[in-house]
Amino acid sequence: MAEELLIRNVRPAGGEATDVLVRDGKIAAIGAGAAAAGATAFDAGGDLMIPGLVEAHTHLDKSFWGMGWQRHTAGPSLIEKIETERRNRRELKLDPDRQSQRLAGQMVGKGTTHIRSHVDVDTEVGLAGIEGVMAMRERLKDVVDVEIVAFPQSGLLVRPGTLELLDRALALGSEVVGGLDPCAVDRDPKGHLDAIFALSQKYGRPIDIHLHERGEMGAFSMDLILERTRALGMQGKIAISHAFCLGMPDVDHARRLIDELAKERITLVTTAPAASTAPSVMACTKAGVVIAGGSDGVRDSWNPYGMGDMLERAMLVGLRNNFRRDEEVELALDVCTYGGAKVMGLPDYGLSVGCFADLVILPGENLAEAVMARPAERTVVKRGRIVARNGKPVGLDA
Amino acid sequence: MAEELLIRNVRPAGGEATDVLVRDGKIAAIGAGAAAAGATAFDAGGDLMIPGLVEAHTHLDKSFWGMGWQRHTAGPSLIEKIETERRNRRELKLDPDRQSQRLAGQMVGKGTTHIRSHVDVDTEVGLAGIEGVMAMRERLKDVVDVEIVAFPQSGLLVRPGTLELLDRALALGSEVVGGLDPCAVDRDPKGHLDAIFALSQKYGRPIDIHLHERGEMGAFSMDLILERTRALGMQGKIAISHAFCLGMPDVDHARRLIDELAKERITLVTTAPAASTAPSVMACTKAGVVIAGGSDGVRDSWNPYGMGDMLERAMLVGLRNNFRRDEEVELALDVCTYGGAKVMGLPDYGLSVGCFADLVILPGENLAEAVMARPAERTVVKRGRIVARNGKPVGLDA
Repeated sequence: MAEELLIRNVRPAGGEATDVLVRDGKIAAIGAGAAAAGATAFDAGGDLMIPGLVEAHTHLDKSFWGMGWQRHTAGPSLIEKIETERRNRRELKLDPDRQSQRLAGQMVGKGTTHIRSHVDVDTEVGLAGIEGVMAMRERLKDVVDVEIVAFPQSGLLVRPGTLELLDRALALGSEVVGGLDPCAVDRDPKGHLDAIFALSQKYGRPIDIHLHERGEMGAFSMDLILERTRALGMQGKIAISHAFCLGMPDVDHARRLIDELAKERITLVTTAPAASTAPSVMACTKAGVVIAGGSDGVRDSWNPYGMGDMLERAMLVGLRNNFRRDEEVELALDVCTYGGAKVMGLPDYGLSVGCFADLVILPGENLAEAVMARPAERTVVKRGRIVARNGKPVGLDA
Repeated sequence: MAEELLIRNVRPAGGEATDVLVRDGKIAAIGAGAAAAGATAFDAGGDLMIPGLVEAHTHLDKSFWGMGWQRHTAGPSLIEKIETERRNRRELKLDPDRQSQRLAGQMVGKGTTHIRSHVDVDTEVGLAGIEGVMAMRERLKDVVDVEIVAFPQSGLLVRPGTLELLDRALALGSEVVGGLDPCAVDRDPKGHLDAIFALSQKYGRPIDIHLHERGEMGAFSMDLILERTRALGMQGKIAISHAFCLGMPDVDHARRLIDELAKERITLVTTAPAASTAPSVMACTKAGVVIAGGSDGVRDSWNPYGMGDMLERAMLVGLRNNFRRDEEVELALDVCTYGGAKVMGLPDYGLSVGCFADLVILPGENLAEAVMARPAERTVVKRGRIVARNGKPVGLDA
């Protein structure tokens, strides 16, 4: 017999209260036809229902989550932070399997049903991070979907041996090719980009590149990415994370870049940083560039911030973009749901009949209010099963 | 007999666990000498203790808190927002007494023990806002300290009759003279500033002026404020809220202004806006300029954001200023505690013996972690009495 869950008295996307029938992990019926004999019923008490939150950029492997507070002492430069992190990893004996489960569990509690995690690959850690996160995601496969980006955090060409490790990480099953600041870190933009595009072609995998480079330097790297996307016919296969340069002072240049990104169907992932230039969510959306949201690191060597809460991220997207009107706030939430789903290429995502039943049920008058209040009482459904109640994952060790 | 409260097993500012004895509303003893016969004991279970959070810039009188969600439809311009707000006030029958109690209660639950509220004075509302907030603060005087700024939200000189109302608001007992964008709103910077400085001199009250003006226009207004402060010997009596212009592109000019502010002991209040230029907390602090934090409007016509939580504001101050090191995050918290106390001129504020027992007790390993986690479980003490438990005010209607 089919596994069924009947969610009664729930308001999808803040609309009228209705019933939603889930069967075999998918939304089978909404409204009058939903009430099915024998289905387990869950009374949502008039709560909102939104699709599962999508964490489109994080680093599960190196969070300190659950390890107590770790003092932050790293200096401000990128290289200092990279060095501090490698030292922390050794000294604290960070276990990627354990840590990724802890942070993923926290994220699930907050309503995240899909995670794209960049996972460090370098000549010191080798493939241990990739293997750890892979072991975790196998155990948690009924709880959350995790996609792995093989990520050269310490540089690719500047650290000989890393490219070969990245190749092996892809052979092992990492779904996405990572990259990092081809000018600022690797000092060889052509070499860096040629290498990751070659890996992408070799394995038929998409690319998601960290681009922190600002202003004209970042724009130059972005241009080189656009050229390769065009030349290799890789439209729709490339994501650029951060893309700080799109907030550059030369707004005409930024505008031209955004139009080119739209044409090549390159997507963006933003944390909506308050202390940096950043892509304008409205400008990108109006130009047709898909933009997703991410927490980036949560409680790690880079970043002491974060509760792994993509509803809070939606608030931060709103604040960063000066969104105040209801429809603007709803767009901020879209970035953290549908935007992420598009960047990750998730099939059957959403609240319609036929979509996977990856859902968050939470109190709130409407979507905008949910972003503002970020209530703790969230029930999370993954493929039709309740995986978190009251903001806490069910049956996972912390 | 003296009223006593013994707070056992608590860690002031994240230090070693100790006992704190409160007597007649003040901290009477810390450590071995604290245990007093007969005192009511509260076991803090090893939680942190911080001084009461200080909300140094909000608008209690016009929040929609507790009135259900109000759609945000105002356009982006300042004038449009001002017009929308006056219309909302009429149509929604916003009651300043009721609304200020609702929002103040929410803030107390989150740990705020002192509030500086700007209260609208204009030719439409007259003094009803001032009178409403005054009635509320009299009722809540044992729960939270509220300071009132008589604030010409709709303009001062552009709206004849407002200056006279401001004068009456001060005669009624408003503690602070408000002002607003002397160029951008009032179109007469000399006239506006001369008028509010004259009121300040007439009543011997400090000034807190909203300065949203950016770049060189804001710097010009700031220069005019500096000139008057110097000429009238009003050092230490002037606060500038927002001061967006201090994030202007001409960093040398901003630097010169900051040095002048330090010399005239002019203080700043920031919301740490993610979507605007803003004063650098580190630059101001290093130059000796006191800077406080505020929520600004919470759920009102201007701003749909906010839970009235100054611990969240500390996080936003940290994010806006790219604070990551522990001591930087502690500075962000200082802005929302000691910084606000200095701007408001609060006597005997802090965690030492002799200070008023205005305290927040909350879980957390240390101060930085408290800012990151912003736990809901907060116990709030006002003048030695518990006024909120688990983040909810005790004995106040919502």
